[in-house]
Amino acid sequence: MKPGKIRAFLLIIGDNITMSIKLKELSHEELVNISELTNEARGYILQMTTLSASGHPGGSMSTIDFLMTLYNLINVDPKNPNMENRDRVVMSHGHVSPAAYTTLAAKGFFPIEDAVSQFRLAGSIYEGHVEPDVPGIEWASGNLGQGLSAGVGFALANKQKGINSNVFVLMGDGEQQKGQIAEARRFAVKYDLNNITAFIDYNQLQINGDITGVMPQNIMDNYISDGWDVISIDGHNFEDIHNAIHDAVDNENPTVIIAHTTMGKGVSFMENKEKFHGSTLNEEQLVLALEELDVENRFDEMKKLRSEHNEQNNCEHSTVRKALNLDLGSPIIYQDKTDCRSAWGNAIADIAKLNKKAPLAVFDCDLMGSVKTDGFFAELPENFYQAGIMEHHTAVMAGAMSAAGVQSYFADFGVFGVDETFNQHRLSDINNTNLKVITTHVGLDVGEDGKTHQCIDYLGVMKNIFGFHTIVPADPNQTDRIIRYISGKYGNFLVPMGRSKLDAIKDSAGEIFFGENYTFEFGKADKLRSGNDGAILAMGTLVTRALEVASKLAEEGINISVWNFSCPTALDECALAEAAKTGNVFTYEDHNVQTGLGNSIADKMMELGLACKFTKFGVEGYAMSGASDQVFAKCKLDTDSIIKRIKAKL
Amino acid sequence: MKPGKIRAFLLIIGDNITMSIKLKELSHEELVNISELTNEARGYILQMTTLSASGHPGGSMSTIDFLMTLYNLINVDPKNPNMENRDRVVMSHGHVSPAAYTTLAAKGFFPIEDAVSQFRLAGSIYEGHVEPDVPGIEWASGNLGQGLSAGVGFALANKQKGINSNVFVLMGDGEQQKGQIAEARRFAVKYDLNNITAFIDYNQLQINGDITGVMPQNIMDNYISDGWDVISIDGHNFEDIHNAIHDAVDNENPTVIIAHTTMGKGVSFMENKEKFHGSTLNEEQLVLALEELDVENRFDEMKKLRSEHNEQNNCEHSTVRKALNLDLGSPIIYQDKTDCRSAWGNAIADIAKLNKKAPLAVFDCDLMGSVKTDGFFAELPENFYQAGIMEHHTAVMAGAMSAAGVQSYFADFGVFGVDETFNQHRLSDINNTNLKVITTHVGLDVGEDGKTHQCIDYLGVMKNIFGFHTIVPADPNQTDRIIRYISGKYGNFLVPMGRSKLDAIKDSAGEIFFGENYTFEFGKADKLRSGNDGAILAMGTLVTRALEVASKLAEEGINISVWNFSCPTALDECALAEAAKTGNVFTYEDHNVQTGLGNSIADKMMELGLACKFTKFGVEGYAMSGASDQVFAKCKLDTDSIIKRIKAKL
Repeated sequence: MKPGKIRAFLLIIGDNITMSIKLKELSHEELVNISELTNEARGYILQMTTLSASGHPGGSMSTIDFLMTLYNLINVDPKNPNMENRDRVVMSHGHVSPAAYTTLAAKGFFPIEDAVSQFRLAGSIYEGHVEPDVPGIEWASGNLGQGLSAGVGFALANKQKGINSNVFVLMGDGEQQKGQIAEARRFAVKYDLNNITAFIDYNQLQINGDITGVMPQNIMDNYISDGWDVISIDGHNFEDIHNAIHDAVDNENPTVIIAHTTMGKGVSFMENKEKFHGSTLNEEQLVLALEELDVENRFDEMKKLRSEHNEQNNCEHSTVRKALNLDLGSPIIYQDKTDCRSAWGNAIADIAKLNKKAPLAVFDCDLMGSVKTDGFFAELPENFYQAGIMEHHTAVMAGAMSAAGVQSYFADFGVFGVDETFNQHRLSDINNTNLKVITTHVGLDVGEDGKTHQCIDYLGVMKNIFGFHTIVPADPNQTDRIIRYISGKYGNFLVPMGRSKLDAIKDSAGEIFFGENYTFEFGKADKLRSGNDGAILAMGTLVTRALEVASKLAEEGINISVWNFSCPTALDECALAEAAKTGNVFTYEDHNVQTGLGNSIADKMMELGLACKFTKFGVEGYAMSGASDQVFAKCKLDTDSIIKRIKAKL
Repeated sequence: MKPGKIRAFLLIIGDNITMSIKLKELSHEELVNISELTNEARGYILQMTTLSASGHPGGSMSTIDFLMTLYNLINVDPKNPNMENRDRVVMSHGHVSPAAYTTLAAKGFFPIEDAVSQFRLAGSIYEGHVEPDVPGIEWASGNLGQGLSAGVGFALANKQKGINSNVFVLMGDGEQQKGQIAEARRFAVKYDLNNITAFIDYNQLQINGDITGVMPQNIMDNYISDGWDVISIDGHNFEDIHNAIHDAVDNENPTVIIAHTTMGKGVSFMENKEKFHGSTLNEEQLVLALEELDVENRFDEMKKLRSEHNEQNNCEHSTVRKALNLDLGSPIIYQDKTDCRSAWGNAIADIAKLNKKAPLAVFDCDLMGSVKTDGFFAELPENFYQAGIMEHHTAVMAGAMSAAGVQSYFADFGVFGVDETFNQHRLSDINNTNLKVITTHVGLDVGEDGKTHQCIDYLGVMKNIFGFHTIVPADPNQTDRIIRYISGKYGNFLVPMGRSKLDAIKDSAGEIFFGENYTFEFGKADKLRSGNDGAILAMGTLVTRALEVASKLAEEGINISVWNFSCPTALDECALAEAAKTGNVFTYEDHNVQTGLGNSIADKMMELGLACKFTKFGVEGYAMSGASDQVFAKCKLDTDSIIKRIKAKL
């Protein structure tokens, strides 16, 4: 993109690319400059929101003084927005994007005219909630309560890499009501993250009014109770802000700066009016406001620019990130009954052993023994993070850490790693992360723990997230290959596994199918058995049962082919066409029958116009608590039931 | 079911159905009795977990002393488990089901032999995590951190109904790491819930060891910082427990009892061993343990009962709950452009006005003006709850309150009311709740707020929950009917709506389609236009656009039928068959094209064997921030693009 023009501002604030925050003091000249910049910024905040007739001016005006003072101090380079040792700023209250864009423009990241004229314009990068496509923006937000977790992820990445720079997380005050913030606070204290500073724009107004009326909270006591230090300041006094940032950065404890501010600060008729949280000024009000601020009125000029906006002039969206160059080692071949969980644990331990210096991280939520992260811990204890029973925070932290270049594996039970954290993964995916979600205990296989713990929707839920690829291993050998495969790719993957031990799947000649000559190909289905009377398409632990079904049917002279569809989000169209040719397609899964493999396959076959008899076998309601085989039988998904159900259709 | 046998116990603890807790004192006889009962209970806890070779003995043994002392005091009636003025106990750490079952058996709810012999047996009610199918169990749990929110829902129901009884929530200590608990604490304080008492089984061990090692936390300070009172006791001293319960119930503030306990308490070789959180004793260890406890060894007897278990003897699952008998009023007919949000707001306000004494509640998360709950608030301010930015807590609380007989409406933006709270709704559905989730700002219609706020997966996510019915209104008139319809039905419903104003949909004669003669029928699709060249199947705000497409195509002599599928989780098979007859079916939605209406319809058509050309129009990737119409155009979902795309297929 073009270098930023600065005509709108007296001069670029700050120029301290190499300087440590600790040595910095606020000169009188800077003070004057910041106060003039924030005043101009308020004018632009109002012009861009009125121009797009939407957005959030009130909070932008209460937070701009802190933001501008912060950027005067921190180590960022508009010419090299991605330099690794930069200080990072997370805007958790992403709706104050007008404040963020004016500050970044003042710092020289892009021309202020672009941000103002293209604000919330379809196709432009200057979206309503901040996004990393905008140079200088680290993390897309907007769903409140997640920003501190993202900041913790960045701070953790710096610690692990030995980078001595700072992370600042800006939040609203109403947002403090979200429980996830308490989880992030605890983690930061456990791991001594003295490189993170939080800021709360304490204007005491949220959408429905005074925060103490909407939901009383003791913000200061909450932070102190979780071991954070608190600095309380006047959020519109530049010297207070400057000194508070110094003190927070010097402090050995994670520190929050609670800044007492005024919503709509700077325009008399906007101040302390909650309606201006999300309402913009009309053009008459804008004129009055700009006069009161005594700043140039560029509204018509910006309006013209907006009408002339040509998408070709947009700066390209954030560059595609690259996979790590890891030694993925050699496959482990399992001859004996093994659970896929252990195969994952052994594979990641092997990768850790071969890549001791690589930026890898594994996150665990108090399930180390069950999700088999202990092998990795033994190899790379410094890269293993025990996050306790705090799944929401852990999901976001792992995503953010991966965006900062540390390939992250979040291991958990399916109901916690998928169902509980879906929205956290959705935001990570929007942030183009490199997150590997490894879930165990999925399907009916978890048996005795009952319906609250049976994750039978992992595919149905996660296929809503555009960038997440789901790969379901059929046995320990395929698990080993899949873990090595995803470890060599950049991007978001879900690998769901059951609990119980499985035999190594064999081909019809009795040889191990996923053996030495097997290479995992994303999107390719595996034909395990041939047969022209029908086809069973299965995934996960049910592939083994499908093979039993086929062999028993073969004894009765019924020959059905068996396919392993390990990539349900990238269906193998050739395999589907071949299966359809048998005239009788059966899908078989211990997943919700409405939303799983059968559903995806039906959809694809309809799209491809593959007509044939089609029957889905899956879970039709909440299952019970009991031994896995008993539960399968009661759900009519055991092999005997399936044989009966198939014969009824042939 | 049969009345409980008590041969296993000396006598039933407590007999205080009508007595107020405040007047009760612990007699020496009771003290002796409780200590003997808890000792026997420990024996049964070990026998049932060893018998099923799974389960959680450690925490059950640390919490049993509190549980038994509590049930000695509280107002519950085994002969009438559902009496409305009962005290309620929520087991948030649902894995201590062995402790819960032995205590309820001791209270006379069912024979101890049933619970022990059928524990975790497929088809029995005595599941691994507690479930309301078990008489005396109020709430299914197991996903930690939700129980306090459920208890708050029950306590709120009592307050609203003027029932003067108590709610007790039992939790683990590791669980305190979950952020949702902080949300529940704040809400309880805001609404002065002095009728709730929390209990923490502070044995200081979680699955991966010492809680301070796994995730350091200041539990006491956390509760105090949120305005709760704390009582700290020896959790194995019956008099301490008894007096603490008295003090907590008398106290005007919400109170938590932190009970210092010992995991595996009572068996020397189990005490303070975290492995016994989720590991059972083998038969040799069991013999030693029962000897040390000096209780009867009934293992072989129970084993025999288990092997003989006949499902016919199970007590029936919890009775189906009934809908409220409300005056649903008369439809409001909208002639002019109106947003569906306002139609929902007007309908619920009308229902409130007509049913001032009915047990209704509306929950809002700081979005009152946007989700239009202000009309209800004006009619029934006492039944309106402003929960702030605390969606996880609010979802569970609303679900639990509905299970306690208060029909609950949870109104929120789609990304918060669905994406953020999916797992909370899943647990509510398992609890057979009566929750109406009303989401606004779904689809691309939310425009400027951008991809983090565009809920384009509400159907794809919620159709994973077996009991949730999704109904998507096409215009304000249908919205009015749908809100009145769901208000007259017991069960869980999702009603997703866009943001913008819509014209009243007209039939081909120009009359309002959802007018005076229209009655909403669940599962019925509406044929809005006829045509034999193809069929557009649409839902929500896109029905209006589909009609535009059809009329423009008609001008070119192409006649396609237009169907409104407002019930995507209960597809109209006759309508699908009729649409398929045209030979060219198009689905049209501003939802993720992989998981929405088109996906459900493809699945159903495949299942029904309805072969025809089939094309899905929907959202194929994250959309941008911009004016709604611009976003539709960029996603090629505007009417001109759809016309082109249809003509290319015909």
